[in-house]
Amino acid sequence: MKMSHELDRLRQEVDEVNVKLLELLSKRAELAQAIGEVKKAQGIHRFDPERERDMLNWVSEANPGPFDDKTIRHLFKQIFKASLDLQQEDHKKALLV
Amino acid sequence: MKMSHELDRLRQEVDEVNVKLLELLSKRAELAQAIGEVKKAQGIHRFDPERERDMLNWVSEANPGPFDDKTIRHLFKQIFKASLDLQQEDHKKALLV
Repeated sequence: MKMSHELDRLRQEVDEVNVKLLELLSKRAELAQAIGEVKKAQGIHRFDPERERDMLNWVSEANPGPFDDKTIRHLFKQIFKASLDLQQEDHKKALLV
Repeated sequence: MKMSHELDRLRQEVDEVNVKLLELLSKRAELAQAIGEVKKAQGIHRFDPERERDMLNWVSEANPGPFDDKTIRHLFKQIFKASLDLQQEDHKKALLV
């Protein structure tokens, strides 16, 4: 079945959103690395559960939908976890130098 | 221990990225709903594994780092899954009307 023009248009919009999501996720990863560096230099523990809880609370409050709060929190938790893993990898590499 | 100015600045940047991420994820969810509607009207099956594979291949190729490909693919898969769940919920609701 031939895809409609409307479906093509929507998929093109999804592709554009994917490009921006990839940019933002990469930007967030860079910031996580920079924060890891600053914390290391200051001898602060890398994981801050209070900061993570604050961000998740903000996400729930600001969520405009249509994803429900549970879904949006799940997605952000995955992003936070990936960022933390990245900081910890950098830390391990630094210890091996 | 008092947080440094640098850490505050980086965290503010993270907050700004979070705002944009929430906007984009919500936009993507809206597009998924719209695509679900068009597919339903055309009687097309909702899940298209080829389209998902193409998007994941694009993500890997375009990934600038510092997240590795495995991590960035995992994050996008979670976003795709949440979008598909949303389409399926809408479909269920439509069947119940």
